Amino acid sequence: MKTEIYTCPGFTFSGCASGLKKNGENDLGLIYSETAASAAGVFTRNRVQAASVKLDMERIQSGKCQAIIANSGNANCCTGEQGELDNLSMTRFVASEMGIPEEMVLVASTGVIGKPLPIQKVEKSVPELVRLLSRNGISEFARAIMTTDTVPKIVTGKGEINNIPFTITGVAKGSGMIRPDMATMLCFVCTDAASDPKLLQEMLFKSVEQSFNRITVDGDTSTNDMVLLLANGVSGAVIRNQDQISVFQNQLDQVLLTLARMVVKDGEGATKLVEISVESAKSDQDARCIAETIAHSNLVKTALFGEDANWGRIIAAAGRAGVEIMPERMDIFFNDVCMVQNGIGCGPVAEAEATKVLKTSEFVIRVKLNMGKGNSSILTCDFSIDYVKINADYRS
Amino acid sequence: MKTEIYTCPGFTFSGCASGLKKNGENDLGLIYSETAASAAGVFTRNRVQAASVKLDMERIQSGKCQAIIANSGNANCCTGEQGELDNLSMTRFVASEMGIPEEMVLVASTGVIGKPLPIQKVEKSVPELVRLLSRNGISEFARAIMTTDTVPKIVTGKGEINNIPFTITGVAKGSGMIRPDMATMLCFVCTDAASDPKLLQEMLFKSVEQSFNRITVDGDTSTNDMVLLLANGVSGAVIRNQDQISVFQNQLDQVLLTLARMVVKDGEGATKLVEISVESAKSDQDARCIAETIAHSNLVKTALFGEDANWGRIIAAAGRAGVEIMPERMDIFFNDVCMVQNGIGCGPVAEAEATKVLKTSEFVIRVKLNMGKGNSSILTCDFSIDYVKINADYRS
Repeated sequence: MKTEIYTCPGFTFSGCASGLKKNGENDLGLIYSETAASAAGVFTRNRVQAASVKLDMERIQSGKCQAIIANSGNANCCTGEQGELDNLSMTRFVASEMGIPEEMVLVASTGVIGKPLPIQKVEKSVPELVRLLSRNGISEFARAIMTTDTVPKIVTGKGEINNIPFTITGVAKGSGMIRPDMATMLCFVCTDAASDPKLLQEMLFKSVEQSFNRITVDGDTSTNDMVLLLANGVSGAVIRNQDQISVFQNQLDQVLLTLARMVVKDGEGATKLVEISVESAKSDQDARCIAETIAHSNLVKTALFGEDANWGRIIAAAGRAGVEIMPERMDIFFNDVCMVQNGIGCGPVAEAEATKVLKTSEFVIRVKLNMGKGNSSILTCDFSIDYVKINADYRS
Repeated sequence: MKTEIYTCPGFTFSGCASGLKKNGENDLGLIYSETAASAAGVFTRNRVQAASVKLDMERIQSGKCQAIIANSGNANCCTGEQGELDNLSMTRFVASEMGIPEEMVLVASTGVIGKPLPIQKVEKSVPELVRLLSRNGISEFARAIMTTDTVPKIVTGKGEINNIPFTITGVAKGSGMIRPDMATMLCFVCTDAASDPKLLQEMLFKSVEQSFNRITVDGDTSTNDMVLLLANGVSGAVIRNQDQISVFQNQLDQVLLTLARMVVKDGEGATKLVEISVESAKSDQDARCIAETIAHSNLVKTALFGEDANWGRIIAAAGRAGVEIMPERMDIFFNDVCMVQNGIGCGPVAEAEATKVLKTSEFVIRVKLNMGKGNSSILTCDFSIDYVKINADYRS
């Protein structure tokens, strides 16, 4: 058996246990670029923002970054002035240890909201974190940002620009508070390609739009979500013209989409990864509204968990999406099995076939409205007993 | 011990088991008014509507009704033309048995969507249903409309107009697919006061607005929801001028609000009844948006189930409500315990006190925004393991 080692030229990674998590797991991670990298970021739209989000939104304006420090076990959000100071300190510890300007360090936090950050633990651990930096350290970093995730999430993509190979490596954490509303978790992406920061930002935004903005776990949005992309250019592959952009965008899309799928698949308590595809709506916007409403419906999600082909809940969710539909025109498919035609159930044989689909771990629910040309799709997961257990007990 | 018998002069009620429910429980019910009554109705806003909803919306235009037949165990929704015919048949059976015009009969259904209604079972049982009609039959009726409800829900209010006493008796069923978006379950209200149908409709609408439109269980809206109000006037109390309207409205509000609370309290898997009260928002509309977002948040609701004073989830839900808030001004109270002041947690002593509140079965979460004069409140319940169990297994 071969274990893939994820790396990205010119970047080093580390993770360690600073004591922020009670269970002794990694909770502090560092990403370092040998040279100052171009930087882009997409941040939560939540009006309540953690100290890390506020600071990074400011610093990313420069378009430059050389290091990212991230912690789990504490969101450092709603922690007032002290929280802002602690957040600044995190970047200062790294800057002074690495000998780089403070402004070149970004920071991310994830965990419980409203608890003061034990900054001494971070301070004590930063020298170790720096010492541990290595090209192969990303899996340690990935473990350091996990909260209720059950598996670390790392993806690598490779491409060529003008015959020069480049790498994109991304790492993400989920797995609750996930909703399609701009950046929905923590995700850090490194590439050795070179790009102007403005262009980098555009490409990141596009990729996020069709990946992290198309997933949902429980419909909540976090105060700490961000996706950061660093491009250090050490490969010599430069992204400038439209062809080069296409090549890079395509790889970036793949990396982010794969990470997004991993986040949903590892959604809190999730046992199934389900794509809700809404077709032939009056507009893409309408299709999106319906897909989101179905993807968020607790009744639909519990039926998925129960492997119950209860299409009435799907049609009822579509009906409350706030957009015009004609139930008598609706068709619903589970993969290729037609369950509903013209708004009426296709009977017990179809239901038995659909139930077989429901017993698999990944499938598509297609809702055809037969009203126009609008399409949209969203990835969701089922809603299990474990989701409730995880979230009822999260802090204890 | 005294068992209260709920009645309403001039009305008779019955319920029986026709076999629509597999478990042999009551599933067919009848309400009959000795004289033709004024009638008003509020119906689901879902764009997918059961045959019963469509027919009643048409028939209620006349402002008159003398009987309501209701069934559980089958929603008769998305059942096509046959479903419409079966729905009409239900009213015809009653009309012919009672010797009243078919148009004077309204119909309601609740249960699984998309299954053909076994109309023969209804036909066979209607004579028995009519035979069983009695002044004291409302508890049999109440059981006949239950689905996942664990208790029947009946409330009576009494008042006086010009020294003439009148009665309002309401019966309702929940307990999933409950969301504040116009009439959110089945509810039938009988009064022996007299009113013009137009006025009756206005009063009903007002009452629903501040009762059933202010509750949520799981955020889904049904295809079959309705609230019907019949006023047969046999008491001689006539509602006409503003004073009389006030007296009646007040009683009607009480009856509907009590039923609404009972529906949430008996929400699927619910162990707690929680009022989310949002105060001093920029506008009532803003307050309403925030209250709804908090009331629907799965993370908030699972924390309530876990009796975890995780106020970060409340503040995060407020932050994604789509309206302007200033986190640094927010205060959060659990009953009278201040947990958050100016967006920052009040520490472990407050948290311990708040946890005591969380261990009770009914309490208020007050969110003060300190931004203006807008207020709104919503009743919700917690989100338990049993909710998932009930809804994963519902049809099996």
